Amino acid sequence: MSEAPRQLTLNLFIYPNGHHEAAWRHPLAARERILDVRYYQSLAQQAEAAKFDAVFFADGLGIGDGIRYASRFHLEPLTLINALAAATEKIGFIATASTSFYDPYTLARLFGATDHWSGGRIGWNIVTSSLKSAAGNYGLTRHPSHAERYERAHEFVQAVTRLWDSWEDEAFVNDASTGLFADTDRIHAANFTGKHLRVQGALNLPRSPQGRPVYVQAGSSEDGRQFAAQYAEAIFTAHQTLESAQSFYRDVKQRAAQWGRNPAHIKILPGLSPFIGSTEAEARALQREFDELIQTDFSLLQLKNQLGLDIDLRGQDLDAPFPRHLIPHSADQQEHSRFQLVLDIVDREKPTLRQLIERLAGARGHFVLAGTPEQIADHIETWFTQGAADGINVMPPWLPGGLEVFTREVVPILQRRGLFRQDYSGDTLRDHLGLPRPPSLFASEQQQAA
Amino acid sequence: MSEAPRQLTLNLFIYPNGHHEAAWRHPLAARERILDVRYYQSLAQQAEAAKFDAVFFADGLGIGDGIRYASRFHLEPLTLINALAAATEKIGFIATASTSFYDPYTLARLFGATDHWSGGRIGWNIVTSSLKSAAGNYGLTRHPSHAERYERAHEFVQAVTRLWDSWEDEAFVNDASTGLFADTDRIHAANFTGKHLRVQGALNLPRSPQGRPVYVQAGSSEDGRQFAAQYAEAIFTAHQTLESAQSFYRDVKQRAAQWGRNPAHIKILPGLSPFIGSTEAEARALQREFDELIQTDFSLLQLKNQLGLDIDLRGQDLDAPFPRHLIPHSADQQEHSRFQLVLDIVDREKPTLRQLIERLAGARGHFVLAGTPEQIADHIETWFTQGAADGINVMPPWLPGGLEVFTREVVPILQRRGLFRQDYSGDTLRDHLGLPRPPSLFASEQQQAA
Repeated sequence: MSEAPRQLTLNLFIYPNGHHEAAWRHPLAARERILDVRYYQSLAQQAEAAKFDAVFFADGLGIGDGIRYASRFHLEPLTLINALAAATEKIGFIATASTSFYDPYTLARLFGATDHWSGGRIGWNIVTSSLKSAAGNYGLTRHPSHAERYERAHEFVQAVTRLWDSWEDEAFVNDASTGLFADTDRIHAANFTGKHLRVQGALNLPRSPQGRPVYVQAGSSEDGRQFAAQYAEAIFTAHQTLESAQSFYRDVKQRAAQWGRNPAHIKILPGLSPFIGSTEAEARALQREFDELIQTDFSLLQLKNQLGLDIDLRGQDLDAPFPRHLIPHSADQQEHSRFQLVLDIVDREKPTLRQLIERLAGARGHFVLAGTPEQIADHIETWFTQGAADGINVMPPWLPGGLEVFTREVVPILQRRGLFRQDYSGDTLRDHLGLPRPPSLFASEQQQAA
Repeated sequence: MSEAPRQLTLNLFIYPNGHHEAAWRHPLAARERILDVRYYQSLAQQAEAAKFDAVFFADGLGIGDGIRYASRFHLEPLTLINALAAATEKIGFIATASTSFYDPYTLARLFGATDHWSGGRIGWNIVTSSLKSAAGNYGLTRHPSHAERYERAHEFVQAVTRLWDSWEDEAFVNDASTGLFADTDRIHAANFTGKHLRVQGALNLPRSPQGRPVYVQAGSSEDGRQFAAQYAEAIFTAHQTLESAQSFYRDVKQRAAQWGRNPAHIKILPGLSPFIGSTEAEARALQREFDELIQTDFSLLQLKNQLGLDIDLRGQDLDAPFPRHLIPHSADQQEHSRFQLVLDIVDREKPTLRQLIERLAGARGHFVLAGTPEQIADHIETWFTQGAADGINVMPPWLPGGLEVFTREVVPILQRRGLFRQDYSGDTLRDHLGLPRPPSLFASEQQQAA
């Protein structure tokens, strides 16, 4: 049996009005519909018609002052994906949830149940929550440190894995004649005890179609990469150059191999925010329309947060070179996932402050490309074939049109080139991504003992 | 304007195979579909076609040994109702969630978002979780006492109310021309500090269609009644006699009035589990079919848990009178919501142990009635017009057929008698129940100051 050719993964990353920070002010955006579930259902249906692997929602456990200027609130992802799964048949859904602020039992149940309701189409984007306002919302007097958060995250993943595995696949018997509903010999206490977490278990529902949701991750700090190499089955990442993406790709796959994992079972998905026109000039003109709607105060606030600065940038001259000396080099700064990326732009391109905020307005540090459908497809093919990506996290600058033009103009080119599927070949998100369904930890222990 | 005639509320309470504990073993039950979301969507659609007010799911944060004998696991309600709301237009959904084991910020977000996605059709059944295995699943070394749980529940309701109100209705501006997305002067920190909980806020989404989900409650202990009178807008309750239901109804409405509330804004909904036949004899024969499938070991386990007994009842003679002397009278026992109800049956009917477990197998202490459609309708009308109920919590003994026969045979009788709506007159669950939409606490404070 010959191996199927390697296939591109396409993931749709949804922000309410799209990823450009001023999208909500543009007449093309669906501003009036951002609290209407039918709008998101129609986006998911459109992505499904184009055979995307999954739809992804980020999250944050608080709001900041930026809410004044921009539609930057996070849709609650777990409730939303259940409403979207109900309106679709095949496409997967990836929801973000925090290991710092969820309880493992609650999270395991919410995702386990969602995997049942969706017929096995669910992924979990594992985050530790860098947003400082979250702590106060959860009764903590201080935000846990980066190191503490990752320590808890490791425990958390191990605990919920044991919960998802606590019912062996054969435990759900449901035999009316014998009256045996569940084989309690095959339902196991999770019995996880760590420094931060203790969970008894078992979970109170049968094992889900995928066994476990797909584990997704997006951290790019040293801790984040190590964590991803150990657990992640898909990774969202931001790169401004092919070289940076290649270096990240090599590094994570090598680390995964060191953990004894198959590197093909970690899909690396850099972000791409495409402005598409019938000529490159038209695409650039469209991008300029959005850039002109930027509100500088918001952009400066966002930049301050991305860099973890204490100072207010609003006093600075927008048309002078970016004040490089204001950026301190501390360990804490390095942990902001966009810190090094922004610094690299500053060092490579020597932008003014205005140029820098326009550079970041498109997709918060993800790659923004204005071009023709062929140019967008060429970019994707290059990254896919040159060891930089297993697929693309598609981040439409505005919605719904930015998705519509991508699915109509770019996807067919990728399909003609044999890079992307014409139709789904399976039913679960694991099927779409070519990931194995993990056996229960407890079943393996039993088999090993036999 | 003349007042509309008082209308019955009909709520559908769903257990996977229905409420009779042996339903899953009967050929009429949908045993093979209990993990298939489309099955629950079809039940909700059927209830909507019959103009029910809402569909309700109970919950429990662990499993017990009973899982061996019966399909007694709880569907995760919050994820499920989002999948069901997506498949319906008008009917409401009530999900149970625990104040003892959720964080207020997480719960407020999940319900707030769900109220958005459903267009304002959501209620929250507020429970404190008596299930002892929950504590270990949440890292606690002991289950909090009844008093501690209620103390935390009071704080919890106050905290989440402040979160749901933290965005005034006018805070969501979404004005592209001025670039004002949200009016931060109208977004308020919750700033709740109690003995058990501290929540800063604000919530990270605009206020939902209903302002707050409908507050529902089901406790019948002294603490539970007091709590319900203070906060609940709908109450689920179990009674074996009209007199008991009337006494409860009067008591709760009086307590509500003492809190300065309008008693009409608390809907009292006793449970009813109907076996329906074209003759009473046929209905009774159907009930017997289910009773014959009872597994005694499960029933005795369930009875032990309902009464909070330490002893194992499996040693007892099933055909001797129920061993009344084994039931201790302690404060702790009184807090089990079914304790007094079971004791009243024992004292009134002097059953054998076998008779008692058959009595409780139908719906765990809720009223079970076998009869013709007219008899079922007569019962409902009596309770509704004689000060015992504002509506009925309909608990089909088996599903889907037990719902199908109720909607086809009983609902039309109630409609012909002018007791129940022919169609929905509004869009939200508050509309269906005739409950007001609460203004934000913070808006009132501002108005009072003005």
